[in-house]
Amino acid sequence: MANSSSGDSMTQRIVRVLETFTADRTAQTASEIGRRAGLPSSTAHRVVDDLVREGLLERDEEHRVRLGMRLWELALRGSSALRLRQAALPSMERVQARVREHTQLAVLEHDSALFLERLSHPDAGANITRIAGRLPLHASSSGLVLLAYAEREVQDRVLTGPLAAVGPGTVTDAATLRRVLAGIRRSGFVVSPGSVEAVSTGVAVPVRDETGEVVAALSVVLPRETPAEVAVTELLRAARDIRAALSRR
Amino acid sequence: MANSSSGDSMTQRIVRVLETFTADRTAQTASEIGRRAGLPSSTAHRVVDDLVREGLLERDEEHRVRLGMRLWELALRGSSALRLRQAALPSMERVQARVREHTQLAVLEHDSALFLERLSHPDAGANITRIAGRLPLHASSSGLVLLAYAEREVQDRVLTGPLAAVGPGTVTDAATLRRVLAGIRRSGFVVSPGSVEAVSTGVAVPVRDETGEVVAALSVVLPRETPAEVAVTELLRAARDIRAALSRR
Repeated sequence: MANSSSGDSMTQRIVRVLETFTADRTAQTASEIGRRAGLPSSTAHRVVDDLVREGLLERDEEHRVRLGMRLWELALRGSSALRLRQAALPSMERVQARVREHTQLAVLEHDSALFLERLSHPDAGANITRIAGRLPLHASSSGLVLLAYAEREVQDRVLTGPLAAVGPGTVTDAATLRRVLAGIRRSGFVVSPGSVEAVSTGVAVPVRDETGEVVAALSVVLPRETPAEVAVTELLRAARDIRAALSRR
Repeated sequence: MANSSSGDSMTQRIVRVLETFTADRTAQTASEIGRRAGLPSSTAHRVVDDLVREGLLERDEEHRVRLGMRLWELALRGSSALRLRQAALPSMERVQARVREHTQLAVLEHDSALFLERLSHPDAGANITRIAGRLPLHASSSGLVLLAYAEREVQDRVLTGPLAAVGPGTVTDAATLRRVLAGIRRSGFVVSPGSVEAVSTGVAVPVRDETGEVVAALSVVLPRETPAEVAVTELLRAARDIRAALSRR
């Protein structure tokens, strides 16, 4: 009933409009949105007007639109991402205070690692671009942990798909990657030098919920030359604390 | 074009579906959603199926649906709420470490104080219910600050509307409230005992962006008997730091 002549539903059109917003592109005109979303200009204007009327988008004085606070509220209020993030935040702050490097929480979402939270060193300034950002499962330490405990179906899809190199240390060979994943399941953590950037090492552990299921990966990014032992110890302790916090809710 | 016979647009129906999720109600069946959203069951099932297909909702094994990670990603990725929250988080952590009570960041949204962030004492456990929650402008310390610096139109609407008592200390008289707001603009902070709960005092200051505009309120909730001086000093310092952080972005 809500389908346009091109066959996409209103929901799809809304998603296509929202997808045009990124960390580097927070304000756009309806025409720009239409071009970027591949929608006819009249359709884009109509969808944007609709979304502004409901507060999901907000219009500024220059007639550009931004993601609305109302969208933020609706997306977070009853969200399991928020529950997980709130259970994890005190433990993440402790890791961050001790390791003093970026500390991150990621979940598996459509064959990527989606970052729910990132704490930066207070003096380094928060890194805005990475929350709600994604990294490939095979390339980031968080992604490797999520992949190691993912359903067989997800593993097979990723392992038989293209394994692009992101950093000089990215494992791009499926057989080697299978061995890495088995190693993570044995040891309960991963230390992954240069998989995303040459200068840094990702260290990640699985976070389990009250039922024992792996629901997230907790990670820190260390300078390449820093030994990983302290980070591994802190992350394992934090993962235990987060599991306990989830059990109390 | 996307209007149903009842006259509401597809966007409105999506909003009504998303509105049924709250901190206490994170999983529902499509029938429950329909009942709570006031939508015919067939419509509710169709909208839910559409939203599941796009990943905005996720279906679990028991055929209940939850807010999806994809919705979270789309709402946050290009959001000014995220920019503000990221700029504020390191300063909020510092306030929290010194004052050791709940520390909160709120924005003005449709005549309410909408809470973007809340840090709890690490040992107290995070308070899950309040992020993305709202409080009336006239009743909470954050709301009073936001109202004090709001556009005249918002002030008039709130001051001429019903001013319900939330706590024993809520100001419910318009003339008194006008004086409170003028006092906030003079002093640059508010100390508000019992306005939300009898046992606690809210302390809040305005947060300005790089242009000097008030964009948020930063607050702590103290036990009623705790003197507010340290909290006021820490909040004022944090607000300065957040403004500086916003200028650097």
